Amino acid sequence: MPQTPRPAALNPADAAFAARLEALLPPGTLSAPEPRYLEEPRGRWHGTGGVLARPRSTAEVATVVRACAEGRVGIVPFGGGTGLVGGQVMEAGPAPLILSLERMAALRAVFPVENVLVVEAGATLAEVQEAALAAGRLFPLALASQGSARIGGNLATNAGGVNVLRYGNIRDLCLGVEAVLPDGSVLNGLKRLRKDNSGYDLRHLLIGSEGTLGVITAAALRMVPQPAGVGTAMLVVESPAAALELLALAEARLAGCVSAFELISRQGLLFLDEVMPEVRQPFADRAEWMVLIELGLPRGLDPQEALEGLFVAAAEAGLVSDGVIAQSAGQQADLWRLRESLPDANRKIGAISSHDISVPLSEIPGFIAAAEAALAGIGAFRINCFGHVGDGNLHFNVFPLPGRTRAGHDGQREAIKTCVHDIAHGLGGSVSAEHGVGRLKTGDMERYGDPAKLAVLRSIKAALDPLGIMNPGVLLAGPA
Amino acid sequence: MPQTPRPAALNPADAAFAARLEALLPPGTLSAPEPRYLEEPRGRWHGTGGVLARPRSTAEVATVVRACAEGRVGIVPFGGGTGLVGGQVMEAGPAPLILSLERMAALRAVFPVENVLVVEAGATLAEVQEAALAAGRLFPLALASQGSARIGGNLATNAGGVNVLRYGNIRDLCLGVEAVLPDGSVLNGLKRLRKDNSGYDLRHLLIGSEGTLGVITAAALRMVPQPAGVGTAMLVVESPAAALELLALAEARLAGCVSAFELISRQGLLFLDEVMPEVRQPFADRAEWMVLIELGLPRGLDPQEALEGLFVAAAEAGLVSDGVIAQSAGQQADLWRLRESLPDANRKIGAISSHDISVPLSEIPGFIAAAEAALAGIGAFRINCFGHVGDGNLHFNVFPLPGRTRAGHDGQREAIKTCVHDIAHGLGGSVSAEHGVGRLKTGDMERYGDPAKLAVLRSIKAALDPLGIMNPGVLLAGPA
Repeated sequence: MPQTPRPAALNPADAAFAARLEALLPPGTLSAPEPRYLEEPRGRWHGTGGVLARPRSTAEVATVVRACAEGRVGIVPFGGGTGLVGGQVMEAGPAPLILSLERMAALRAVFPVENVLVVEAGATLAEVQEAALAAGRLFPLALASQGSARIGGNLATNAGGVNVLRYGNIRDLCLGVEAVLPDGSVLNGLKRLRKDNSGYDLRHLLIGSEGTLGVITAAALRMVPQPAGVGTAMLVVESPAAALELLALAEARLAGCVSAFELISRQGLLFLDEVMPEVRQPFADRAEWMVLIELGLPRGLDPQEALEGLFVAAAEAGLVSDGVIAQSAGQQADLWRLRESLPDANRKIGAISSHDISVPLSEIPGFIAAAEAALAGIGAFRINCFGHVGDGNLHFNVFPLPGRTRAGHDGQREAIKTCVHDIAHGLGGSVSAEHGVGRLKTGDMERYGDPAKLAVLRSIKAALDPLGIMNPGVLLAGPA
Repeated sequence: MPQTPRPAALNPADAAFAARLEALLPPGTLSAPEPRYLEEPRGRWHGTGGVLARPRSTAEVATVVRACAEGRVGIVPFGGGTGLVGGQVMEAGPAPLILSLERMAALRAVFPVENVLVVEAGATLAEVQEAALAAGRLFPLALASQGSARIGGNLATNAGGVNVLRYGNIRDLCLGVEAVLPDGSVLNGLKRLRKDNSGYDLRHLLIGSEGTLGVITAAALRMVPQPAGVGTAMLVVESPAAALELLALAEARLAGCVSAFELISRQGLLFLDEVMPEVRQPFADRAEWMVLIELGLPRGLDPQEALEGLFVAAAEAGLVSDGVIAQSAGQQADLWRLRESLPDANRKIGAISSHDISVPLSEIPGFIAAAEAALAGIGAFRINCFGHVGDGNLHFNVFPLPGRTRAGHDGQREAIKTCVHDIAHGLGGSVSAEHGVGRLKTGDMERYGDPAKLAVLRSIKAALDPLGIMNPGVLLAGPA
């Protein structure tokens, strides 16, 4: 593998650079970045930025990127700003150009017969979902931040969410991308094809590359048919192992029709009691483990009957001890509101350390047991473990005991994180399941990454972005 | 984008090289290539090869590749030899080493709870299907050549087949790969994860790279639940446009449960009458267009009732005029046998030119009409258009009139191919839908490829395989 050439130092996006670039663009494209472009949701980093560019077309994006390449100015692509790993904020180094796609939000075309829509990167995920609904279809990617997250950022980070079990991550829902590459050339890859084997799959290379290989400007996205009926239930299970057996039972009975399968723990319910008592809870008791299951069924099957049948079979197998099946759209919404309130409750309680890990499905019970035991060796904590158990993706978040503050645990944070990540990695898991690496986890990449993989990643980065201008410091730590 | 460095000329895998390599490997690993390693199914190319290596482990593959890198000897990876685009045979140039994975066919592990199996690259697709069935699951990739095609070749070419509509191409069924890279390093990427956002997705880069970036030695593959019931029908439709409307109707009623949707034309049935009269045909008349539809349903739905309901609704909408619904497994097999006999019948008739194209779904009727009209301007032919219409993937094959020979049309072949490919490309399609580029279509890559895409492809190839030893001449034509 060739050695990665060390990129030359970058220059700041200073006034002289901004003046040169301004002359190439329509008036009003550039401005000074407002504070919201320099912040991120958890308030961990504060970014730097010399100039904000808000182009209106792919050609304008290309002009901006070409100018940055010529001036050796770093580019930080900016979508909805909802990322949790600092991919959208650069704290140190020569002030970059911040490239927001917010003015490129057009729905370029909808093809209902094809189950395809073509949309620009600045559209929010909620807007894409609405466009699909308007066409009588579904765009099944669903995330807590969907109202503000933009589809370009979703693609750059290969967003996941609650429907991955059935429909995959966003890379599985994308047929083609248009992107501006680090030299300012435009990749015209907006194919609407289900089968196209004509060379290395650059769509999959750009998706999940977190803005380090280019800027996605538009995408052809797959829609899916709307299920004829949707059923939702919350079932009390004995353990995470029982949850996995319940999933296997559900899939054996309802092959391909399980849309979501989310694990919820007693600690999550107690957090809701503590800081969000307005959230309706379906059970009088606070059970140790529950799953939220959603079915999307073909015509001819009654969702409630299907869930009742599943419940009876699961009860006979000793997998579930209690459960509620939503009897109305309102009750379905209540169950989902509970699930979706968990991250908010977590924020209000204040985590010492949050983890976005995945493990092979069969390792989930072992991961939870091992992580709890190991953390007990570090100190006494409250643990809220929840998430997309059907994908092996858990948010394993660690909180102080009641009456104690997260600041009081500052000295333990690194040990907690390393402990949880080491266990996930040791079980064949990932320490960056759905949120990406960003600037937060570049150290984890070095610690846990396969050496051959890291060498290839560096080699690709050097080949496509030899100047190192695209989202500097993201994914791969820069040369020392 | 950096310029592709021109690789130094390769050396032949001559006796001296073989002797050096032999000393590094267990006895019997190397031999002279038998004729079957130098042939391909359509008899178009005859390969050259200095030495055949059949390693038994990933470490031995790495030894072979490292030696080739040191000796600047080309490597032609060889799976089942079933590829249709010459990816497995190198006709000209310094005799390469042929690297067959046939002795690495172990099923390394099965994880039924995870719906995952880990298998070495030399296992045949049929063996993988059987392993999944033995675990009570399904490996849904299905191809005519599945008895001899090996999974490593399926991955290298991103194989498709008849179930892509529901389950995707093989890249959608692969969670991780182990591979030997062009410098002999081993990529340990056998993750069994549904979510893993930790750097550029090298699995997707290697899948479909046709052996030009490395050799896949093992893969973690997704299994899927077996449907509770399977229904199969053949329905007579008015036109390809009606077939698309029927597909949309089926998906609206049976969201996510349509497993296959194959278009068959009258010419295909007439070819069966002509050269395979033993194949049972369900209709007395030879209708102009039919679809073979298969449903895989959850428990609680009767497959025949679901198909009857679909037929009635489709008839009311004027989309279908006749149909048979299989009443037994034997009848299902008969319908599939008809479909699967079409390529055999084509071979017996003898095509002047075969095409593996895809277009956006809504362009299918326009493509067929335009291609038929354009070909009429070249001459009089019989056209058998069939394939995976649910994926927009048609095999549009052109044959001589009865009593005439393909040799008599030799002078028209290039014009026919260019005509069909130009039309597919002009409609936003691909001229390499599921078979890959190989050595057959490198000219098409140059003719139809997006310039920015081609530049990135060359750049990646140069970065990962700077010596140009991996499957020389495949995908990208070598430097002149």
